[in-house]
Amino acid sequence: MSGGLAKTPEPPYYAVIFTSRRTAVDEGYDAMGERMVELAARQPGFLGVESTRGADGLGITVSYWATLEHIAAWKAQGEHRIAQSMGHKKWYEAFETRIARVERAYSGPK
Amino acid sequence: MSGGLAKTPEPPYYAVIFTSRRTAVDEGYDAMGERMVELAARQPGFLGVESTRGADGLGITVSYWATLEHIAAWKAQGEHRIAQSMGHKKWYEAFETRIARVERAYSGPK
Repeated sequence: MSGGLAKTPEPPYYAVIFTSRRTAVDEGYDAMGERMVELAARQPGFLGVESTRGADGLGITVSYWATLEHIAAWKAQGEHRIAQSMGHKKWYEAFETRIARVERAYSGPK
Repeated sequence: MSGGLAKTPEPPYYAVIFTSRRTAVDEGYDAMGERMVELAARQPGFLGVESTRGADGLGITVSYWATLEHIAAWKAQGEHRIAQSMGHKKWYEAFETRIARVERAYSGPK
Protein backbone atom coordinates (compact mmCIF):
# COMPACT_ATOMS: atom_id res chain seq x y z
CA MET A 1 0.00 0.00 0.00
CA SER A 2 1.61 3.21 -1.09
CA GLY A 3 0.71 6.58 -2.46
CA GLY A 4 0.10 10.01 -1.14
CA LEU A 5 -2.79 12.28 -0.38
CA ALA A 6 -6.10 11.31 -1.95
CA LYS A 7 -7.67 13.75 -4.39
CA THR A 8 -11.24 13.73 -3.20
CA PRO A 9 -14.17 15.77 -4.54
CA GLU A 10 -16.03 18.47 -2.62
CA PRO A 11 -17.78 17.09 0.49
CA PRO A 12 -20.05 15.49 1.43
CA TYR A 13 -18.66 12.00 0.95
CA TYR A 14 -17.77 9.18 3.32
CA ALA A 15 -14.59 7.95 4.98
CA VAL A 16 -13.73 4.55 6.42
CA ILE A 17 -11.06 5.10 9.05
CA PHE A 18 -9.34 1.79 9.73
CA THR A 19 -6.79 1.89 12.55
CA SER A 20 -4.86 -1.25 13.37
CA ARG A 21 -2.01 -2.67 15.33
CA ARG A 22 -0.17 -5.47 13.56
CA THR A 23 0.92 -8.80 14.91
CA ALA A 24 4.43 -10.04 14.09
CA VAL A 25 2.95 -12.41 11.48
CA ASP A 26 3.69 -11.48 7.88
CA GLU A 27 2.51 -14.35 5.64
CA GLY A 28 1.37 -12.46 2.61
CA TYR A 29 0.24 -9.31 4.37
CA ASP A 30 1.84 -6.80 1.99
CA ALA A 31 0.65 -8.61 -1.13
CA MET A 32 -2.87 -8.79 0.27
CA GLY A 33 -2.80 -5.09 1.14
CA GLU A 34 -1.78 -4.17 -2.38
CA ARG A 35 -4.41 -6.44 -3.87
CA MET A 36 -7.11 -4.87 -1.68
CA VAL A 37 -6.15 -1.35 -2.79
CA GLU A 38 -6.27 -2.52 -6.40
CA LEU A 39 -9.68 -4.12 -5.90
CA ALA A 40 -11.10 -1.19 -3.92
CA ALA A 41 -10.06 1.21 -6.66
CA ARG A 42 -12.26 -0.72 -9.09
CA GLN A 43 -15.31 -0.67 -6.83
CA PRO A 44 -18.17 1.69 -7.65
CA GLY A 45 -18.10 4.82 -5.52
CA PHE A 46 -14.41 4.59 -4.61
CA LEU A 47 -12.90 8.09 -4.27
CA GLY A 48 -9.41 7.43 -2.97
CA VAL A 49 -7.31 5.97 -0.17
CA GLU A 50 -4.57 7.13 2.18
CA SER A 51 -2.57 4.58 4.11
CA THR A 52 0.46 4.55 6.34
CA ARG A 53 2.05 2.48 9.07
CA GLY A 54 4.69 3.66 11.51
CA ALA A 55 7.68 1.80 12.84
CA ASP A 56 5.74 1.10 16.06
CA GLY A 57 3.23 -1.08 14.17
CA LEU A 58 0.29 1.32 14.30
CA GLY A 59 -1.34 1.74 10.92
CA ILE A 60 -4.07 4.04 9.67
CA THR A 61 -5.84 3.53 6.36
CA VAL A 62 -8.57 5.94 5.32
CA SER A 63 -10.60 5.09 2.23
CA TYR A 64 -13.09 7.53 0.76
CA TRP A 65 -16.43 6.62 -0.79
CA ALA A 66 -19.35 8.39 -2.44
CA THR A 67 -22.09 6.82 -0.29
CA LEU A 68 -22.70 4.42 2.61
CA GLU A 69 -24.10 1.91 0.12
CA HIS A 70 -20.77 1.85 -1.72
CA ILE A 71 -19.01 1.15 1.58
CA ALA A 72 -21.42 -1.69 2.37
CA ALA A 73 -20.83 -3.21 -1.08
CA TRP A 74 -17.06 -3.07 -0.62
CA LYS A 75 -17.29 -4.62 2.86
CA ALA A 76 -19.32 -7.50 1.36
CA GLN A 77 -17.07 -8.02 -1.69
CA GLY A 78 -16.00 -11.66 -1.82
CA GLU A 79 -12.24 -11.43 -1.95
CA HIS A 80 -12.29 -8.54 0.52
CA ARG A 81 -14.30 -10.64 2.98
CA ILE A 82 -11.64 -13.32 2.88
CA ALA A 83 -8.95 -10.68 3.48
CA GLN A 84 -10.91 -9.27 6.42
CA SER A 85 -11.20 -12.71 7.95
CA MET A 86 -7.47 -13.38 7.53
CA GLY A 87 -6.70 -9.96 8.99
CA HIS A 88 -8.78 -10.64 12.07
CA LYS A 89 -7.25 -14.07 12.54
CA LYS A 90 -3.58 -13.46 12.02
CA TRP A 91 -2.46 -10.00 10.92
CA TYR A 92 -4.10 -7.65 13.41
CA GLU A 93 -3.63 -7.65 17.13
CA ALA A 94 -6.34 -5.03 17.42
CA PHE A 95 -8.26 -2.78 15.06
CA GLU A 96 -11.00 -0.22 14.94
CA THR A 97 -13.16 0.70 11.96
CA ARG A 98 -15.03 3.98 11.93
CA ILE A 99 -17.47 5.08 9.26
CA ALA A 100 -17.72 8.84 8.99
CA ARG A 101 -19.38 11.44 6.82
CA VAL A 102 -16.87 14.04 5.62
CA GLU A 103 -18.50 17.44 5.93
CA ARG A 104 -15.64 19.85 5.25
CA ALA A 105 -12.19 19.59 3.73
CA TYR A 106 -9.37 22.02 3.11
CA SER A 107 -5.96 21.41 1.68
CA GLY A 108 -2.62 23.12 1.82
CA PRO A 109 -0.18 22.57 -0.96
CA LYS A 110 2.86 24.54 0.10
CA MET B 1 3.32 11.56 18.90
CA SER B 2 2.85 8.00 20.01
CA GLY B 3 0.19 5.72 21.33
CA GLY B 4 -2.21 3.22 19.96
CA LEU B 5 -5.87 2.98 19.13
CA ALA B 6 -8.09 5.64 20.63
CA LYS B 7 -10.81 4.52 23.02
CA THR B 8 -13.73 6.53 21.77
CA PRO B 9 -17.33 6.49 23.03
CA GLU B 10 -20.33 5.29 21.05
CA PRO B 11 -20.94 7.39 17.93
CA PRO B 12 -21.90 9.97 16.94
CA TYR B 13 -18.81 12.10 17.47
CA TYR B 14 -16.44 13.92 15.15
CA ALA B 15 -13.09 13.15 13.56
CA VAL B 16 -10.44 15.47 12.17
CA ILE B 17 -8.50 13.49 9.57
CA PHE B 18 -5.20 15.27 8.95
CA THR B 19 -3.08 13.73 6.20
CA SER B 20 0.29 15.24 5.42
CA ARG B 21 3.48 14.83 3.52
CA ARG B 22 6.55 16.09 5.37
CA THR B 23 9.33 18.24 4.05
CA ALA B 24 12.92 17.31 4.94
CA VAL B 25 12.96 20.12 7.52
CA ASP B 26 12.98 18.96 11.15
CA GLU B 27 13.58 22.00 13.36
CA GLY B 28 11.52 21.09 16.38
CA TYR B 29 8.84 19.11 14.57
CA ASP B 30 8.70 16.17 16.98
CA ALA B 31 8.68 18.34 20.07
CA MET B 32 5.90 20.46 18.60
CA GLY B 33 3.90 17.35 17.70
CA GLU B 34 4.15 16.04 21.24
CA ARG B 35 3.23 19.41 22.68
CA MET B 36 0.15 19.60 20.45
CA VAL B 37 -1.06 16.16 21.53
CA GLU B 38 -0.56 17.21 25.15
CA LEU B 39 -2.49 20.46 24.59
CA ALA B 40 -5.26 18.81 22.57
CA ALA B 41 -5.80 16.26 25.32
CA ARG B 42 -6.58 19.11 27.71
CA GLN B 43 -9.09 20.77 25.38
CA PRO B 44 -12.81 20.42 26.15
CA GLY B 45 -14.46 17.78 24.00
CA PHE B 46 -11.25 15.89 23.17
CA LEU B 47 -11.95 12.14 22.85
CA GLY B 48 -8.67 10.72 21.60
CA VAL B 49 -6.06 10.74 18.86
CA GLU B 50 -4.40 8.21 16.56
CA SER B 51 -1.28 9.17 14.68
CA THR B 52 1.30 7.49 12.52
CA ARG B 53 3.83 8.31 9.83
CA GLY B 54 5.40 5.84 7.43
CA ALA B 55 8.95 5.68 6.17
CA ASP B 56 7.77 7.33 2.92
CA GLY B 57 6.90 10.56 4.77
CA LEU B 58 3.12 10.22 4.58
CA GLY B 59 1.46 10.82 7.92
CA ILE B 60 -2.09 10.45 9.10
CA THR B 61 -3.34 11.88 12.38
CA VAL B 62 -6.97 11.42 13.35
CA SER B 63 -8.24 13.29 16.39
CA TYR B 64 -11.70 12.68 17.81
CA TRP B 65 -13.99 15.30 19.30
CA ALA B 66 -17.42 15.50 20.87
CA THR B 67 -18.77 18.32 18.69
CA LEU B 68 -17.87 20.63 15.79
CA GLU B 69 -17.69 23.50 18.26
CA HIS B 70 -14.92 21.71 20.16
CA ILE B 71 -13.01 21.27 16.90
CA ALA B 72 -13.39 24.96 16.07
CA ALA B 73 -12.13 25.92 19.54
CA TRP B 74 -9.07 23.68 19.16
CA LYS B 75 -8.32 25.08 15.70
CA ALA B 76 -8.42 28.61 17.17
CA GLN B 77 -6.34 27.79 20.27
CA GLY B 78 -3.40 30.22 20.44
CA GLU B 79 -0.41 27.91 20.64
CA HIS B 80 -2.04 25.53 18.15
CA ARG B 81 -2.47 28.38 15.66
CA ILE B 82 1.24 29.11 15.83
CA ALA B 83 1.99 25.41 15.28
CA GLN B 84 -0.37 25.33 12.29
CA SER B 85 1.36 28.31 10.77
CA MET B 86 4.82 26.78 11.27
CA GLY B 87 3.57 23.51 9.81
CA HIS B 88 2.29 25.23 6.69
CA LYS B 89 5.49 27.20 6.27
CA LYS B 90 8.18 24.63 6.86
CA TRP B 91 7.14 21.15 7.97
CA TYR B 92 4.52 20.14 5.43
CA GLU B 93 4.98 19.82 1.72
CA ALA B 94 1.25 19.17 1.37
CA PHE B 95 -1.63 18.41 3.67
CA GLU B 96 -5.34 17.84 3.72
CA THR B 97 -7.70 18.30 6.65
CA ARG B 98 -11.10 16.63 6.62
CA ILE B 99 -13.78 17.12 9.23
CA ALA B 100 -16.10 14.14 9.48
CA ARG B 101 -18.97 12.93 11.60
CA VAL B 102 -18.38 9.37 12.83
CA GLU B 103 -21.63 7.48 12.47
CA ARG B 104 -20.62 3.88 13.20
CA ALA B 105 -17.64 2.17 14.78
CA TYR B 106 -16.70 -1.42 15.45
CA SER B 107 -13.57 -2.84 16.94
CA GLY B 108 -11.77 -6.12 16.85
CA PRO B 109 -9.46 -7.04 19.63
CA LYS B 110 -8.11 -10.40 18.62
